[in-house]
Amino acid sequence: MADDKNQALPYGDMKLIQSDGSTNRPLVSIKDIQTNLVGQQIWVRGRLHSSRCKGKQAFFVLRQQHFTVQAILRVAEGTQVTKDMITFAAGLPKESIIDVYGLVKQSPVKIESCSQTDVELELSQVYAVSRSDARLAVQIEDLSRSESETVLVIRVDQDTRLNNRVIDLRTVTNQAIFRFESGVTNLFREALNKRAFVEIHTPKIINAASEGGANVFEVSYFKTKAYLAQSPQFYKQMAIAADFDRVYTVGAVFRAEDSNTHRHLTEFVGLDLEMAFNYDYHEVVDLIGKTFVDIFKGLEERFATEIAAVHRQYPAEPFKYLDETLVLKFPEAVEMLRQAGAEMGDEDDLTTANEKLLGKLVRDKYQTDFYILDKFPLAVRPFYTMPDPHDIKYSNSYDMFMRGEEILSGAQRIHDEQLLRERASHHGIDLATIEPYVKAFKYGCPPHAGGGIGLERVAMLYLGLDNIRKTSMFPRDPKRLEP
Amino acid sequence: MADDKNQALPYGDMKLIQSDGSTNRPLVSIKDIQTNLVGQQIWVRGRLHSSRCKGKQAFFVLRQQHFTVQAILRVAEGTQVTKDMITFAAGLPKESIIDVYGLVKQSPVKIESCSQTDVELELSQVYAVSRSDARLAVQIEDLSRSESETVLVIRVDQDTRLNNRVIDLRTVTNQAIFRFESGVTNLFREALNKRAFVEIHTPKIINAASEGGANVFEVSYFKTKAYLAQSPQFYKQMAIAADFDRVYTVGAVFRAEDSNTHRHLTEFVGLDLEMAFNYDYHEVVDLIGKTFVDIFKGLEERFATEIAAVHRQYPAEPFKYLDETLVLKFPEAVEMLRQAGAEMGDEDDLTTANEKLLGKLVRDKYQTDFYILDKFPLAVRPFYTMPDPHDIKYSNSYDMFMRGEEILSGAQRIHDEQLLRERASHHGIDLATIEPYVKAFKYGCPPHAGGGIGLERVAMLYLGLDNIRKTSMFPRDPKRLEP
Repeated sequence: MADDKNQALPYGDMKLIQSDGSTNRPLVSIKDIQTNLVGQQIWVRGRLHSSRCKGKQAFFVLRQQHFTVQAILRVAEGTQVTKDMITFAAGLPKESIIDVYGLVKQSPVKIESCSQTDVELELSQVYAVSRSDARLAVQIEDLSRSESETVLVIRVDQDTRLNNRVIDLRTVTNQAIFRFESGVTNLFREALNKRAFVEIHTPKIINAASEGGANVFEVSYFKTKAYLAQSPQFYKQMAIAADFDRVYTVGAVFRAEDSNTHRHLTEFVGLDLEMAFNYDYHEVVDLIGKTFVDIFKGLEERFATEIAAVHRQYPAEPFKYLDETLVLKFPEAVEMLRQAGAEMGDEDDLTTANEKLLGKLVRDKYQTDFYILDKFPLAVRPFYTMPDPHDIKYSNSYDMFMRGEEILSGAQRIHDEQLLRERASHHGIDLATIEPYVKAFKYGCPPHAGGGIGLERVAMLYLGLDNIRKTSMFPRDPKRLEP
Repeated sequence: MADDKNQALPYGDMKLIQSDGSTNRPLVSIKDIQTNLVGQQIWVRGRLHSSRCKGKQAFFVLRQQHFTVQAILRVAEGTQVTKDMITFAAGLPKESIIDVYGLVKQSPVKIESCSQTDVELELSQVYAVSRSDARLAVQIEDLSRSESETVLVIRVDQDTRLNNRVIDLRTVTNQAIFRFESGVTNLFREALNKRAFVEIHTPKIINAASEGGANVFEVSYFKTKAYLAQSPQFYKQMAIAADFDRVYTVGAVFRAEDSNTHRHLTEFVGLDLEMAFNYDYHEVVDLIGKTFVDIFKGLEERFATEIAAVHRQYPAEPFKYLDETLVLKFPEAVEMLRQAGAEMGDEDDLTTANEKLLGKLVRDKYQTDFYILDKFPLAVRPFYTMPDPHDIKYSNSYDMFMRGEEILSGAQRIHDEQLLRERASHHGIDLATIEPYVKAFKYGCPPHAGGGIGLERVAMLYLGLDNIRKTSMFPRDPKRLEP
């Protein structure tokens, strides 16, 4: 019954699909193969997830993303299925893409190993659409093994996974992680769109190494040199000075830091926002806190299946947050840390270890994995940060944390040209290099504040993963530029 | 009645807003100042759009984005308004941000020059929040002048606009352009989200100059060299080989072309999509066509005000499209062009002039500014383009056009590793440089197709603007890296 005229046999390699009009059979998605289709003959395209041959029959599992269905091919009288056909089908490499035609049958027992537990396919035609190489560099089974399993010890290390990323991404867990991550950006934009924000796009190629000059990548730009933007900071502020009132931007940001840690990438996705406020930057802090709560709630509602799938491979405590986000003042945090035995000065920044410890203390005391730390010491913040009005040691700035790691850094910015020049000079910045930015505040600018969020960190920490490379589809670090 | 304790006078310069808690008066948005507020005293923050003084009274226009309201300050008995106050207020530079307190009054005549035509404010307090420099490099009035005006001849050229972009962006037209453009990306994502696409993010820093090697920017990457991606092409295809089925990505793309034209930028925003199909790439062509129609309809519905505002300054014919997008075959287009007197070979690419001409011919014949041109000659397309199954001269590729300019380029891609290697070699590409990409097709890959859209071009051409720098907030070209 093959409608492909060149194929007299009910099996074989299909001609390269080149849109020649010879075939146009409707395909049923694996997720839709359910008991209501029992008794029907259908075409299905899927990846050959697994196969095993037992004499005159062969059992297959077909996969589409995280959906799987069992298929059986058996030599029987009155059918076209021959021993040769079994040999052909059983010889197809795993991960090949195949088109099969078969009868949907109620399965005699629940098939616990497949997502479609109640049905199976009795095949009568099998064609290879795109064969996989028989020697898979890594096995889906090994890539998918739960960290909670202790008996089997075959694990795939992070580098091997990334070297074979196209295969690695096919696991149920990775399908879930990146669908989840797609949800984070959609929810971020939804939360801000409903609060009257406008999406903007800011240049990644900039003429001067801003923000101090360290850790920037240099670009050859025709006959001159340029740099890759470390953040959209200057541009989103210029949009505020240009009356856009509330803006956000989602895009690549670049850090030429030679940091080989679980949480640093040289290129990541920044979710940035900036907004004018009336009299107090806490208007903005409050809005960002609410934005995160909207995101968390949306993730729970829309991605419960994906979150559960990730936790099957990588077990983690559920992410906890409060409806009213906790705002802690920096000196309070210092006090909590000191009481817990940590040593730090009033104007020191938080070390990574203290961040982690503080996360634990806060979780124990307030039952939340998400909180805001307000009023950082001025000395540890960028030059454009507004000083605290009452105590010059502090500033109108904040970080936000998930599971004890920073995921947002933000502040009220200096909107006064003169003060901005003074603070830049104080930081030893050559004013000539940032003149177009400073000039933006010469023609009237409302007070404003904002923040920059690292997408991969939010996804990693919400899911409780241990490495940021797990939430970057094709990560970049000092040692990795491929694939 | 100032509640700022340091300000005894009903006017003056406010202390720098530093979030000190001293002021927290509710501000009314200008768009909300309507007749229902007549008789109420309100605080408003706005830009001083214009001011003129006539003896004992001064008239102001306050602006917030594209909303404006008239305000009057006059010396009168029983009020705090003095001649000194008039002098202070009238002396404030245009574009300063000010807080005013005043009584909402029904205006005796319609105020046609303001967006709020029926009301005006009788002021009793005026404070400067953020003063503008008195010498504005460019005047909002000049920046806003309609191209249809023929009497007044002061125009601001594109470079002066861009050199003063923060002021330029404040015009009603630019506020409308970038709100409209924000709508394009939101509608693009909405259209694809509802069609089961997943948003992904692809690296901008890549290890080899892909796609032939020309026109790429080189980056210093620690001790080695890297390049800026000219498109997310390879990565979105890898996502398809990795079972994501349907993906899109919105992000910066880079072209090191020394083209100084009205439609080239060295950095622009790419709206890219890629999807697996069953048997024919026209499944994808059809979906992209529908996506554009969804976008156009959404723009009409949500951004009619913005489109009208842009056309007041830059008059243009309304953008025409069909509910069923026209798909023209390349040979048909060649025939139309030849009949119109243009000369071109069967396998030539379209010149810019012929693109424009074809756009006119199509508009006259089919009444549409948007159409799809299908089946480009293989010779003029990238190596990864699937050849036509029947005629090796042609390919399974397409461009899409708006007002006679290309805004999308796309194709069925080669999903077979061996054919891909052959075609790459045929194009003289060093296979070693693209090995991680080619390897993605070694382990089974569904047939797929997609396209890349230039955001700024879509916005420019929909609105009928003459220069792509008008739809890029901070454009980059071979001669411009600032602001």
